[in-house]
Amino acid sequence: MIGVDWGTTSFRAWRFGADGAVLGARAAPRGILSVSGGDFAAVLREQCSDWLEGGERRVLLAGMVGSRQGWLEAPYLPCPAGIAELATALVPVPFEGAEVRLVPGLSARDRQNVPEVMRGEETQIAGLDLADGIACLPGSHSKWARVEAGRIAAFETYFSGEAFAALRSATILGRMMKDGPTDLAAFDRGLARAGEPGHLLHHLFGVRTLGLAGALADEASASYLSGLLVGHEIGAAMPARAHVTIVANPELAALYARAIAARGGSAAVASPEAAARGLARIGERAWR
Amino acid sequence: MIGVDWGTTSFRAWRFGADGAVLGARAAPRGILSVSGGDFAAVLREQCSDWLEGGERRVLLAGMVGSRQGWLEAPYLPCPAGIAELATALVPVPFEGAEVRLVPGLSARDRQNVPEVMRGEETQIAGLDLADGIACLPGSHSKWARVEAGRIAAFETYFSGEAFAALRSATILGRMMKDGPTDLAAFDRGLARAGEPGHLLHHLFGVRTLGLAGALADEASASYLSGLLVGHEIGAAMPARAHVTIVANPELAALYARAIAARGGSAAVASPEAAARGLARIGERAWR
Repeated sequence: MIGVDWGTTSFRAWRFGADGAVLGARAAPRGILSVSGGDFAAVLREQCSDWLEGGERRVLLAGMVGSRQGWLEAPYLPCPAGIAELATALVPVPFEGAEVRLVPGLSARDRQNVPEVMRGEETQIAGLDLADGIACLPGSHSKWARVEAGRIAAFETYFSGEAFAALRSATILGRMMKDGPTDLAAFDRGLARAGEPGHLLHHLFGVRTLGLAGALADEASASYLSGLLVGHEIGAAMPARAHVTIVANPELAALYARAIAARGGSAAVASPEAAARGLARIGERAWR
Repeated sequence: MIGVDWGTTSFRAWRFGADGAVLGARAAPRGILSVSGGDFAAVLREQCSDWLEGGERRVLLAGMVGSRQGWLEAPYLPCPAGIAELATALVPVPFEGAEVRLVPGLSARDRQNVPEVMRGEETQIAGLDLADGIACLPGSHSKWARVEAGRIAAFETYFSGEAFAALRSATILGRMMKDGPTDLAAFDRGLARAGEPGHLLHHLFGVRTLGLAGALADEASASYLSGLLVGHEIGAAMPARAHVTIVANPELAALYARAIAARGGSAAVASPEAAARGLARIGERAWR
């Protein structure tokens, strides 16, 4: 089977053996935004031609490829849902020469009945070795999911990553910021500030005044802002003394693990290949 | 005397009689960002030539003209401060043919000892008829000030206005938004949402999901986002059952008054000419 994590900006594919072993892996900057004229079939054929010619007849796709802007819109499956529910709700996509199916995204309602959605993260969570616990998938739209008996029971999204990018690119806070590696001391200061009383909208102005007062260097202020946002997210999303499984690239995962520990939780960083394992597990269940 | 509220993007000037009566008023898009080569004297002369030729020999300037990016940096005066303290701390600016002075901005420390600053708002507050109470000056950087015995005792800033602009212009939330007058029903929904449990970073993602679910029209989502941010600001900044004096343009003042009432406070909208009265009062005290 071929499994593809097809997101907004990236295309990651794996070839699996019968037992779910990874026989090959590749990645390309062919996210759905790069697909012209809606010809997703051509991109899939181009990226995986050798595997298809080698005899693969099953392709499982997860991520934004199943959104309104993707190949075909796969309706959201309501929580609670796990591998079994996902496997029975796959959406077939017409394709010459192979059976192609989409993993649906998940929907939920938050505590105030406001809708929640995810696409792609459900497959990463399906790839974790987590029967019961909290999974955190930081990013543009950070997801915090509660897993119960191997199924995603509920989840909430935080706009932290995209808010950071917008505050940095489009406000006076970003005007002084300089690029560079994360300054951990400044990240920790932002984290600590997030733990103090006061609203995020007030704390944000402090990024400016600390800079004006010479108490925060231009080289450090992006890391401080990052700590501030991550700290606010974790303070709101994480139950007290929780153990959290983080799925992210190593650098971002390390920052979240640091922040979770600072707020009294503990964290384990999952393999970034959780998406591959999730695809293998869902496919195995669907086609067994 | 001539008084000028000289901000980042606008220049507003008044000519005052001996008793503080306004003899003339004008405004131009000649904020400090428009002043080339630092020649503030030329802009002042050009905007007020008739008044200067008519014999005015005293000019009082307030606002960002006293910042590092302005004519001359006037050091911040620490709170508590009122008309008397501002009048004795004016900063003279060299100018041929008239005595020109800058009103200093104010500094404070918030409850966690993080610096706070304002420039221009102190002059607007000096123009209010408010001996004791709360003043709210909404905008890019909303100021909430506590006035005691006619002096600004403390204040806090909220980044709401600039956050709104950045979220609207630089995130996926803004991509669906359409221009138009404020949709009060949507503004109220955002306000109500801000009063529910849950962090702003989570509530922001709801702007997206409510849109996806067909529960928030594209025409309404900017007003909903505005209500969300204003509601979060007021929920954090306003003491319970406070009476708040608002200084803003009429449309923004009406939205804040509505939001303050919805959160259990009450509001009075001050004249938008508070800056003029503040300049007249500070000048009268300084030159009497």
